[in-house]
Amino acid sequence: MTDPTCKACQYSWPKVDHFIADLGLSKAYLHEDQFFPGWTVVVFKRHATELFHLAPTERIQLMEEVNLVAKTLAQVYEARKINYELLGNQLPHIHWHVIPRLAGDPAPLEPVWRVQHEPMLRSGSDLQSTVQPLQQAIQNASGITNRRAPH
Amino acid sequence: MTDPTCKACQYSWPKVDHFIADLGLSKAYLHEDQFFPGWTVVVFKRHATELFHLAPTERIQLMEEVNLVAKTLAQVYEARKINYELLGNQLPHIHWHVIPRLAGDPAPLEPVWRVQHEPMLRSGSDLQSTVQPLQQAIQNASGITNRRAPH
Repeated sequence: MTDPTCKACQYSWPKVDHFIADLGLSKAYLHEDQFFPGWTVVVFKRHATELFHLAPTERIQLMEEVNLVAKTLAQVYEARKINYELLGNQLPHIHWHVIPRLAGDPAPLEPVWRVQHEPMLRSGSDLQSTVQPLQQAIQNASGITNRRAPH
Repeated sequence: MTDPTCKACQYSWPKVDHFIADLGLSKAYLHEDQFFPGWTVVVFKRHATELFHLAPTERIQLMEEVNLVAKTLAQVYEARKINYELLGNQLPHIHWHVIPRLAGDPAPLEPVWRVQHEPMLRSGSDLQSTVQPLQQAIQNASGITNRRAPH
């Protein structure tokens, strides 16, 4: 269920202070680079690398969890479009990038990967002021009352 | 259910000769640029732009159709990894990019969008020799017997 060589299984990524919510089969974290505001990653809890490796019930639940995050980000950020990406080229452990594309997007027609930029890292109160509204919005949307530590 | 300004609704994209399979709620087509061999697009039949705009039953079925295509591409191309992307930045009509990343990939750690290249277009017998094995493999995997014209 876990892979000792996988940084998602070993909880070294994403960072714990970026935790947003435990969704059931997955956990949502704010992406470390907030150049695109609201970029969130949804990390499957157990080690798996492809959707077709999951049991159908797992796959369905995971996608409903991704959908909940997407809907919440669209509302909180008034997004023009959501990008949903499961790549795994560098870290095969299933994690979805859920990226709200906003009205002020610097390259609205392009995938985020084509937009060269300096990473916008957040920490401390700046990070918390981004994470907390998302925690609250997902809690409201899902009825999640579990606020325990993420790991 | 259709948008007169949408090229997916108006059947001007993807090209009809790239048709692979009618999956139920969506249709699969070979992507016009085959620089990454096997790149397939799964186009939702009716006009919708976000996963959370779909009824849960539609969303679940669509994702099972995407999953079927991913599993088939992984087998046919012996892929190292599958990339799954729903972007819609240029064409908001829901279409999934399902991209097998192969052993000989020129940039295995990068999203495809970062790999500059000349598009590799296929036509005629060259196109058919790529499409037909995928048609057969998806037919075998899904039990689809419907081989009617795609539109």
